[in-house]
Amino acid sequence: MNKEIRYENTFKTVKILMEKRISRVDLAKATGLTTAGIGKIVKNLIDLGIVKEKERISRNVGKPPTLLEIVPESIHVVGIGIGRDRIESCLTDSKGKILDHVSSSFDNLESLVNTLYENVDSIFKNAKRNSIEIKAIGVGIPGIVNKRKGFSEKTTKFGNFENILLNKILKDRYKVEVYVENDADMAAIGEKWFGGGIHLNNLIYFLIDSGIGAGIVINGSIYQGEMGYAGEIGHSLVTKDGQINYFEDVYGLDVILKSAQKFYPDLKSIQDFNKMIAKKDDRALKIFEDFSREIASLVLFASNVTGIQNIFIGGKSVEFGNVLLQSIIEITDKFSFPNHKLNVQFSHLGDISIPLGSATQA
Amino acid sequence: MNKEIRYENTFKTVKILMEKRISRVDLAKATGLTTAGIGKIVKNLIDLGIVKEKERISRNVGKPPTLLEIVPESIHVVGIGIGRDRIESCLTDSKGKILDHVSSSFDNLESLVNTLYENVDSIFKNAKRNSIEIKAIGVGIPGIVNKRKGFSEKTTKFGNFENILLNKILKDRYKVEVYVENDADMAAIGEKWFGGGIHLNNLIYFLIDSGIGAGIVINGSIYQGEMGYAGEIGHSLVTKDGQINYFEDVYGLDVILKSAQKFYPDLKSIQDFNKMIAKKDDRALKIFEDFSREIASLVLFASNVTGIQNIFIGGKSVEFGNVLLQSIIEITDKFSFPNHKLNVQFSHLGDISIPLGSATQA
Repeated sequence: MNKEIRYENTFKTVKILMEKRISRVDLAKATGLTTAGIGKIVKNLIDLGIVKEKERISRNVGKPPTLLEIVPESIHVVGIGIGRDRIESCLTDSKGKILDHVSSSFDNLESLVNTLYENVDSIFKNAKRNSIEIKAIGVGIPGIVNKRKGFSEKTTKFGNFENILLNKILKDRYKVEVYVENDADMAAIGEKWFGGGIHLNNLIYFLIDSGIGAGIVINGSIYQGEMGYAGEIGHSLVTKDGQINYFEDVYGLDVILKSAQKFYPDLKSIQDFNKMIAKKDDRALKIFEDFSREIASLVLFASNVTGIQNIFIGGKSVEFGNVLLQSIIEITDKFSFPNHKLNVQFSHLGDISIPLGSATQA
Repeated sequence: MNKEIRYENTFKTVKILMEKRISRVDLAKATGLTTAGIGKIVKNLIDLGIVKEKERISRNVGKPPTLLEIVPESIHVVGIGIGRDRIESCLTDSKGKILDHVSSSFDNLESLVNTLYENVDSIFKNAKRNSIEIKAIGVGIPGIVNKRKGFSEKTTKFGNFENILLNKILKDRYKVEVYVENDADMAAIGEKWFGGGIHLNNLIYFLIDSGIGAGIVINGSIYQGEMGYAGEIGHSLVTKDGQINYFEDVYGLDVILKSAQKFYPDLKSIQDFNKMIAKKDDRALKIFEDFSREIASLVLFASNVTGIQNIFIGGKSVEFGNVLLQSIIEITDKFSFPNHKLNVQFSHLGDISIPLGSATQA
């Protein structure tokens, strides 16, 4: 067996174990591997302290099978989500349980690194105090990610990220392995492993914030495409008032808020905006209807391309609450194929989906 | 080895053989199977007369390896593409060589079956005259395909197709196996196997006609998604003049022609329309610019979702010629990621891509 396939099979095995306790025989069935092959992988995981044997099920006849389970405290990793103006970091165990969570905002790219250090320093200190050894750091960032160096090659909204080599600076400071991935991809993986997607093989996670992206899970794994940028839907085009533009430059939340501020300069947040909608203010309603219709179109489009019906919405847009969700559901219900209605819901994990997903990749 | 995996491995083997002559050892490398496994599959294919051994390559040392190749005349199949008003059928050998080709138009769903029979009867008669035995029929049709029964469950433009059970009526009449699939998927497979996609692992084929769909090839295989309808992009939404509508109901070629006919009632075809564009007629140009911009947006969107850069355009829209292609390339070049420019080209196979692709599935 070559190294890559062995890694893949180990990963497959750990994934199944993260969902349930299972015997070696059932693991072999679930993975399609031989019992001998599973035996070797499991032995290795037990030696590493990642998996342990659990109580036997009593049956009437014969020797009961030994169940295997992940040792929750066996691996601790830090998951980080870097947004446009906010860093979310958490410490998790191998079962995705969050043991620590730090969140900080930053003003500009220059202050990103210091904010990141403060954020992660705090987690490492707390971990040390509790005798927890952190094995790795996973980071989710916007745009097309250069995984080797750990920066974003291209985002329309995030600015020039190429001077900040996350892989290097985090590895140098914390002396652990560092993995950098796309934020929406990590949100989708977080949702699949620990959120509303636990029992789903296919899902799309729409990260709708000032930037707009999507993470696509196909057959249980993240789909990034040949060039790694699958799901970069904010970079798609939309025609409005005869003008062609990037979707996120017309319907990103910052632009939506700015549109509303033309009429209501005091409006500061989506919560303020929501109050105008609740009051049935004409101009606020018009902006919101335009926004939610185009988000629904985006969702339906991505669903039609991928054939995926289970949709999770995350990012700051969830602050619109049910008014947004209902609006998307109404439109997609009306225009999806009769026997293939979309199942649209908000992320079950909220802000934590990116760092949690990032943690799984670490 | 279970039946499904054996079938999959045989299919993989045949696919490689369709592209090149190759030795058993190299086949084992290419498929990842053991040489013993490959030996069994090849023996079976030789017994069936589908594969034969070819001349040996002379080398300086040792016994030269025996090359294997497909016997072109070993399998003959009929591939059929059913469009909105046209049926394209062809007879092909195992190498995708077209031995016969019949094309007929029909007026409405009622006359579809008779036209189909005339079309296919002619191919079967010619084949018999040449002592060719046809083993199977593959059909590509628009919409969400019920593969078991062989009809289209839902198309916005094709009308109610549910009374025409292609699987049954073709099997009853011609006494061969019948496989029914989505038209754009078959076009994509045709392009991958015999057209511009021979050396590509990933491509999208946009079938742009009165209906609009896409076939997606990922890692060399057609991607249909969990529910089978991946690529149904004509059913996505577009907002125009404040109205939300299915993309193909706004930008399908029939609608585009109708828009032009409002100004020029004598205009009958895309060729006529092209003449207006060549004359730089303002109203024709405006309609065309709107159309080509939205097609380019659609292409970029699907590319961003899937991360696929190799794009083929087929269907009647190719009659616009270079003016359409250049327009799409200009927009996608401007708005795609700098290091990930799209490679947009017309289908190398034209009308024949659907029946050819369908033939491969038979």
